[in-house]
Amino acid sequence: MNKFSFDLAATDGRARTGTIHTPRGEIRTPAFMPVGTAATVKAMLPGSVRETGADILLGNTYHLMLRPTAERIAALGGLHKFMNWDRPILTDSGGFQVMSLSDLRKLTEEGVTFKSHIDGSKHTLSPERSMEIQELLGSDIVMCFDECPALPADRDRIGRSMELSMRWAARSRAAFGDRPGYALFGIQQGGLEEDLRGQSAEALREIGFEGYAVGGLAVGEGQEAMFGCLDYAPEQLPADKPRYLMGVGKPDDIVGAVARGIDMMDCVLPSRSGRTGQVFTRHGVLNIKNARHQNDPRPLDEDCTCPACRGYSRAYLHHVFRAQEMISSMLLTWHNLHYYQQLMSGMREAIAAGTFEAWQADFHAARAQRDIDPL
Amino acid sequence: MNKFSFDLAATDGRARTGTIHTPRGEIRTPAFMPVGTAATVKAMLPGSVRETGADILLGNTYHLMLRPTAERIAALGGLHKFMNWDRPILTDSGGFQVMSLSDLRKLTEEGVTFKSHIDGSKHTLSPERSMEIQELLGSDIVMCFDECPALPADRDRIGRSMELSMRWAARSRAAFGDRPGYALFGIQQGGLEEDLRGQSAEALREIGFEGYAVGGLAVGEGQEAMFGCLDYAPEQLPADKPRYLMGVGKPDDIVGAVARGIDMMDCVLPSRSGRTGQVFTRHGVLNIKNARHQNDPRPLDEDCTCPACRGYSRAYLHHVFRAQEMISSMLLTWHNLHYYQQLMSGMREAIAAGTFEAWQADFHAARAQRDIDPL
Repeated sequence: MNKFSFDLAATDGRARTGTIHTPRGEIRTPAFMPVGTAATVKAMLPGSVRETGADILLGNTYHLMLRPTAERIAALGGLHKFMNWDRPILTDSGGFQVMSLSDLRKLTEEGVTFKSHIDGSKHTLSPERSMEIQELLGSDIVMCFDECPALPADRDRIGRSMELSMRWAARSRAAFGDRPGYALFGIQQGGLEEDLRGQSAEALREIGFEGYAVGGLAVGEGQEAMFGCLDYAPEQLPADKPRYLMGVGKPDDIVGAVARGIDMMDCVLPSRSGRTGQVFTRHGVLNIKNARHQNDPRPLDEDCTCPACRGYSRAYLHHVFRAQEMISSMLLTWHNLHYYQQLMSGMREAIAAGTFEAWQADFHAARAQRDIDPL
Repeated sequence: MNKFSFDLAATDGRARTGTIHTPRGEIRTPAFMPVGTAATVKAMLPGSVRETGADILLGNTYHLMLRPTAERIAALGGLHKFMNWDRPILTDSGGFQVMSLSDLRKLTEEGVTFKSHIDGSKHTLSPERSMEIQELLGSDIVMCFDECPALPADRDRIGRSMELSMRWAARSRAAFGDRPGYALFGIQQGGLEEDLRGQSAEALREIGFEGYAVGGLAVGEGQEAMFGCLDYAPEQLPADKPRYLMGVGKPDDIVGAVARGIDMMDCVLPSRSGRTGQVFTRHGVLNIKNARHQNDPRPLDEDCTCPACRGYSRAYLHHVFRAQEMISSMLLTWHNLHYYQQLMSGMREAIAAGTFEAWQADFHAARAQRDIDPL
């Protein structure tokens, strides 16, 4: 199998499970993609990320183009070799982070000029340059260059932005060219407006992509509004291609998105939370810096098989967090990524078995119990 | 084998190789002990420390008594269980770090009172309290509580300090009591004065210990003065017990100490250097933050089998160091600890084979080549 394809194996309600085939390996869906911003999933070795069950990582075009630069990574053999991860990588287009991180942006029909948040140097991103960078990186799944307005925004602004993104999607497709084994994903925009989402989906279908993302969500609209949009947006996109919800999310966001027909997600939350002491378990969220854990000999989760839970007490994890030791970030990030991947594999099994509704009820019931009582 | 013992297997000149047997496992000598100050070898998981070849870790009484406290660690099952390291642990007595880190110290015949550098709380250390803390931690090799004057110091000050340390050594021995399977090591003092070192060794022999440390070196006297002292100090100590040189050192310090009859060493250098970008290879020292590595596809050392050298280019390691990513500390610490343990195993083999002089010539010749040329 040397080309990019998607097999849908089973559906349960609107939820789907299947496999994305790529020359670098299979991606089991629904899939959660850990974020490796600067060519590393923070506080993790790539082999450990794989051990958590990840089939694919996400890399950030914006960060990598600034440092160490896409040209340097290409000269060193591409991002996979550079960061020692031989499985699939998806890269974003850089557009979202230009808007959230850089200084002195100027947006035109052509693209965006901006100054680096690292050293103030001036750069340009356009559909053509974004495609070039993502090819230099060697990304397996390339994202169209788009514009993503923050919500709330008025309908007129959202409509004009969506139309610009659709013109950029066509330019991205043209610039990407014919690259067997690699995929280009279109990104649906249109905010929370069902008709604009529909127009965007139609425009993307006409261009034709190997996969489709629901963009412009998880930008401050809240879970209820996001789920409202996901009640129609995924089904506006082709059923025979992967559907990717960008930048989502918390565990219950992810479960709700999968229930609404999403196949792929990414989020910094499990890794970032690992560095701030926030821990995800089937009983919800706990914060390891809380004094209640100081003398607690129990693991984060008795049933978890990650190295943090197999080898260490809450008391130890509390101690190393307080002492600002790196092992705190290393173990908590590992645990959180493991938890997220367990969540995905549980959903995949339940969807395949046709028991996803019962699985969701169990998921919510376990969270409602909240963390175990202090000793 | 359920008791503490030392088998000397071979000597080559003054250099020795052998095995320390403990209920928690064997320690191959000459041994290098990575430092796990606050119940973690910084930036490493314990399993990874073991993979580098370490048979034993060092823990710091001063840090652990302040946070999370020895009593808390004891209640949680001891330091081994707390930090997930089931092999031998040596703890220092706390005396050295009280002098170097704490505030408002007051030294009397009884012991030392001081304020914590973390929160200003007041604490006392004495021979009896140090023994109690090290027992609470569950340390396999306990160090006598001593006083270590900074060098240079005048002979009179060094003599009085040594005599105090010898009285404290007797009190440490009495407080330690009879604990089969655990060892108490005496610490020779006396600065750079051969006769004072001899008197100290005599006093320690009379008390009787399971091992003997050469203390009071690597405190600013320089390598030449240290080697001068090591030309006589180890041989003043019993030949049938392990000899431990505290807080040493750079690779060439370690080789010179082994050549002078030292069996055990510890130092923060490989782990601390890993966090500051300083890398040890058989060709000496390199600094990964140097721009010459920015485009270099080669590993730190072509012949090294550590994960940093097997999976990553100098260019990658340069990038993640510059980007302040944790993986930089993780990989460089692993490499440095691996290098140190390879150094020890090379010396053990050479001493056993009676080829240590040739081994030393090779060691110095490889370092004289310095790092590989830039591309």
